[in-house]
Amino acid sequence: MTVHETAVPTDPTGGRPVVPSRSRHRPLGLGEISLGPGFWRERQEANASATLQHCEDWMERLGWLANFDRVAEGTTGPDRPGWCFSDSEVYKLLEALSWEYGRSGRPEADEAVRRITERVGRAQDGDGYLNTCYGHAGRPPRYGDFETGHELYCTGHLLQAAVARVRTTGPDALVEIARRAADHVCDTFGAGGTEALCGHPEIEVGLVELGRALGEERYVEQARLFLDRRGHGTLREDRVPLGGAYFQDDVPVRAAHAWRGHAVRALYLSAAAVDLAAEREDRELLTAVERQWEHSVARRTYLTGGMGSRHQDEGFGEDWELPADRAYCESCAGVASVMVSWRLYLSTGDVRYADLMERTFFNVVATAPSADGRAFFYANPLHQRVTAGAPDPGTVSPRAEGGVRAPWFDVSCCPTNLARTFATWHAYAASVGDGGLTLLQYATARITADLGGGRVLGVEVETDYPGDGLVTVRVTDPPPGAAALRLRVPSWARGAVLEEGGRRRPVPPGVAVVEREFSGGEEVRLRLPVQPRFTWPDHRVDAVRGCAAVERGPLVYCAESIDLPAGVDLDDVLVDPSAAPVDRGGRVLVRATAGPSRTVGRDWPYGEATGRGGGGDPFDLTLSPYHQWAERGPTTMRVWLPADRG
Amino acid sequence: MTVHETAVPTDPTGGRPVVPSRSRHRPLGLGEISLGPGFWRERQEANASATLQHCEDWMERLGWLANFDRVAEGTTGPDRPGWCFSDSEVYKLLEALSWEYGRSGRPEADEAVRRITERVGRAQDGDGYLNTCYGHAGRPPRYGDFETGHELYCTGHLLQAAVARVRTTGPDALVEIARRAADHVCDTFGAGGTEALCGHPEIEVGLVELGRALGEERYVEQARLFLDRRGHGTLREDRVPLGGAYFQDDVPVRAAHAWRGHAVRALYLSAAAVDLAAEREDRELLTAVERQWEHSVARRTYLTGGMGSRHQDEGFGEDWELPADRAYCESCAGVASVMVSWRLYLSTGDVRYADLMERTFFNVVATAPSADGRAFFYANPLHQRVTAGAPDPGTVSPRAEGGVRAPWFDVSCCPTNLARTFATWHAYAASVGDGGLTLLQYATARITADLGGGRVLGVEVETDYPGDGLVTVRVTDPPPGAAALRLRVPSWARGAVLEEGGRRRPVPPGVAVVEREFSGGEEVRLRLPVQPRFTWPDHRVDAVRGCAAVERGPLVYCAESIDLPAGVDLDDVLVDPSAAPVDRGGRVLVRATAGPSRTVGRDWPYGEATGRGGGGDPFDLTLSPYHQWAERGPTTMRVWLPADRG
Repeated sequence: MTVHETAVPTDPTGGRPVVPSRSRHRPLGLGEISLGPGFWRERQEANASATLQHCEDWMERLGWLANFDRVAEGTTGPDRPGWCFSDSEVYKLLEALSWEYGRSGRPEADEAVRRITERVGRAQDGDGYLNTCYGHAGRPPRYGDFETGHELYCTGHLLQAAVARVRTTGPDALVEIARRAADHVCDTFGAGGTEALCGHPEIEVGLVELGRALGEERYVEQARLFLDRRGHGTLREDRVPLGGAYFQDDVPVRAAHAWRGHAVRALYLSAAAVDLAAEREDRELLTAVERQWEHSVARRTYLTGGMGSRHQDEGFGEDWELPADRAYCESCAGVASVMVSWRLYLSTGDVRYADLMERTFFNVVATAPSADGRAFFYANPLHQRVTAGAPDPGTVSPRAEGGVRAPWFDVSCCPTNLARTFATWHAYAASVGDGGLTLLQYATARITADLGGGRVLGVEVETDYPGDGLVTVRVTDPPPGAAALRLRVPSWARGAVLEEGGRRRPVPPGVAVVEREFSGGEEVRLRLPVQPRFTWPDHRVDAVRGCAAVERGPLVYCAESIDLPAGVDLDDVLVDPSAAPVDRGGRVLVRATAGPSRTVGRDWPYGEATGRGGGGDPFDLTLSPYHQWAERGPTTMRVWLPADRG
Repeated sequence: MTVHETAVPTDPTGGRPVVPSRSRHRPLGLGEISLGPGFWRERQEANASATLQHCEDWMERLGWLANFDRVAEGTTGPDRPGWCFSDSEVYKLLEALSWEYGRSGRPEADEAVRRITERVGRAQDGDGYLNTCYGHAGRPPRYGDFETGHELYCTGHLLQAAVARVRTTGPDALVEIARRAADHVCDTFGAGGTEALCGHPEIEVGLVELGRALGEERYVEQARLFLDRRGHGTLREDRVPLGGAYFQDDVPVRAAHAWRGHAVRALYLSAAAVDLAAEREDRELLTAVERQWEHSVARRTYLTGGMGSRHQDEGFGEDWELPADRAYCESCAGVASVMVSWRLYLSTGDVRYADLMERTFFNVVATAPSADGRAFFYANPLHQRVTAGAPDPGTVSPRAEGGVRAPWFDVSCCPTNLARTFATWHAYAASVGDGGLTLLQYATARITADLGGGRVLGVEVETDYPGDGLVTVRVTDPPPGAAALRLRVPSWARGAVLEEGGRRRPVPPGVAVVEREFSGGEEVRLRLPVQPRFTWPDHRVDAVRGCAAVERGPLVYCAESIDLPAGVDLDDVLVDPSAAPVDRGGRVLVRATAGPSRTVGRDWPYGEATGRGGGGDPFDLTLSPYHQWAERGPTTMRVWLPADRG
């Protein structure tokens, strides 16, 4: 096999994480797009140069990698370090490394894949079973705890890693390991086998994509079996504190009206459902996920795109239950939300899914890591009441609280999940379908899109987005005949203007389409209004009643105590929404007052008078992009600012 | 021993749960006060006639009582039913039964104590150790898990049960069992013994009180040892998901500034600290608890008096973190809050502690049980978003969610905790000190208070409180010479009037004192203003910004969807605070509107416009006392109502 001699995939349309057999839009291959300087390439570089090695180092240090060696050496025992799902972190790292190698051709990424794959492979049992937590000396038996054991969940991540490898370098040892693991799963849990399912969905999405990548229909069918088994109370709900809704075994995915329970579980399951809907042309299933997306986005989603209102079960709350301070908004749920929306977009071509992806990319995914890529938020609250102390960079953070980016967590699902997402970010920036190329996420980039039938459309995109709203698309390689150049106009962009062919026209949110013959060198310009704006909540979002937030383009802003005048408490700040917020080079100023506040009483917080903040002389309150919060040290923070009106 | 032949205690000053060796106020003995018809006697009767037997029946059915038989028979094993702390429910029932026998002399209560005591006693090991979960065949060893094992916690409840018995009937078999258990604890964990402490405080308060009741200084000293050991990270914080603050082992009780972590744990610990402060004349310790009370009541307590803002750890939140919908306000935390406040009142004579007790009694303790005493709230939220289905009265409720009173819970700490509180409620209604008798909680009652020095003050209190604000105190048995009759004027009572000796005078919140010579048959009347009133939150309580609540006397009111006009959604109701709320025989009417509401959008809950409820024609919104909510069937509910002003 010679695949390893090729640094990057030879097929430019290859190397993408999701490839439905049929879909309205085709995702760009990693080889069809490369990013230029800007917001997202910066993050891809930090991911490549710091995060990947950081993750491998931590897993080596904590023995999560050595767990594989111990299985191979027969030295397993009760003292195995890590949670039962620590193998999955190794697999997510393998996936991230594989995508990174496909993106950049960095040899160290490929070397790391080979190095880790070798250790993983030696731990695989003869029948294809692969898990360092179960089934070996001194360990619990295989498949003894479907509710919380995470066995098939780990396997699912192994399969996703193999998908990344097969789509970037072609089949190799990792793909072979995954194939044997997938066969084992089908043999064990297929028709006539054990009628079980895993407490944490993930195997489904892994099986479908590996099935697509390898042309193994059997894997797709196994995913369908798992999906349709779910929702009938097969899992013992007394094994988890909050019952069957926690792992979506209460109601079949086809029948559910909203996302509920553990957010990452709910979203991974929905991603697989959309995949299966595409493979089986199952409109009922697609409609079910669309319905859940609509309901949950309209009533259970934070302004940042974050999902998960409860720390208790890392889960969705009821409709309108969106506390800013106790928002969980797990980084992994942001990643999972992107997975679902992307699949829905590919199936439907509806850019509202890309709208939510943009919001989530900028305000959850980009918020989680520190600038240097070596510390991460697990939870992403919209209000930090108490300054958190910075964690020791040398120690594992025991808890998933918000307010502090930690180098590693006891449950450390987020760093590797972010890593695989950054490595593939450009795959979500554009698509081919509806007669041409659609630009979905704006970044300086070079795109050479295969429109099919031998026709190629090449463009260069230039923009300082999100700092600036001007997006210039230069046609470098026009296809013969008419083609569509389609540009997403975000839902927040009221007053966007499209310039092309010497014409200027207002374009409403949705898709601005230029469909005609293009000539080389001509430019299409989209001007998005990125002046800062106040945003208000629906009256049913009780937690932020009477508050306004400030947004600017796709970015949510926040106030940090570190920026307050001396003596001002963030709790007492009242903003004046009659004064328009002003852009100050990435930061935003709003008019505010902060005292003397009218408190209700010193000894009891309820009384005859209306308590309110504000009062005193107005001052300029500095707001920063939410994704930058806590980067300058411990601080309290608010996205939603009490406003001096009803 | 002849004590069992006496139905009620011969010493009228006896039979009270807390008897400090020294205190500014002396609690009334159960024999010094008896309640007449009214709010609280109704609840005492439901407790006596239904709840006590209900608890015994459930514990029999679930095998929690049989766990003691199995230890005695040597048939313990891995299949022991119940949580590790189920013994404590048996002890709390014994305590409740003992107090009930002391209160009413009902022979069935005494018989139940004897019946259960016999089974408990047979399970006691030779060295005094008594726990059905540990230390016997097929069970984990003794004292192997101080963090979550609850062993000493169970023992603490056993000691409290014995206190009830010794103070109502005198020493008996139960007291003997407790004495041996307490001796075992002192032998094992005393000076020179194991330097350990229990993850759930309770042993401390049990040891102090049993020490007081039996004159065993050794027990008091052991409690002090446990108290002072706490707060130094002795317990392994990695054994609980949320770290050392969860069980208050992060900071010594003397150094803490606020209650934090698990609410019941924090409050039981504080109760013991006040007890020890009294025994040791330890002003530093008393001041520490006063400080924590002040801070937590001012910033971490719900309008109902409920404590605990988080489901995740059943715990306190940060300052101002008081979500209405996810309020935990565990019924047990209400009981525990009363325990702390009562002890602080006795030590200081400050009636603000009695203010909080009243609020908690009416809005947490009285809210928890159903009218028939056979179903209970575990959590007491101030906002129910979704109607809960009524539980099957024959099944155990697996979870501690709010919205539905269940007959029994998987973790069923609340029913027995409420039972022991109702059985002793009258003990908290008055005290002797500061030169006379202080009336703290208002109920029709007959009181014969021993003022000391052979002087007795007998009064009859007559009132329809809280339905009506008139409290008439008739002196039936005046003492020789001058004495003080002191009446608490609640903090909410602006415009209260005292009538006595032909005079009327306004009395501000605090204590209204009549100090003079009394003659038999004369009356003192207190008129408390119980017309309904709007109450507003401090502006820092983000969760209810822009909302008002309605209170009437000590009662918090709420809106239930069951009372709404057809087609009106509770989410859309906006009250008009310019129209005074109107009393309608226990219910209250406020003016409200409810539509068409201005929502922000159908697909995304944030936008350029200010969303708000209300609009349309005004209507009368019916509010009910919060303690009655959900008694008429499944309903959504709000205490805090969005108001049509800032």
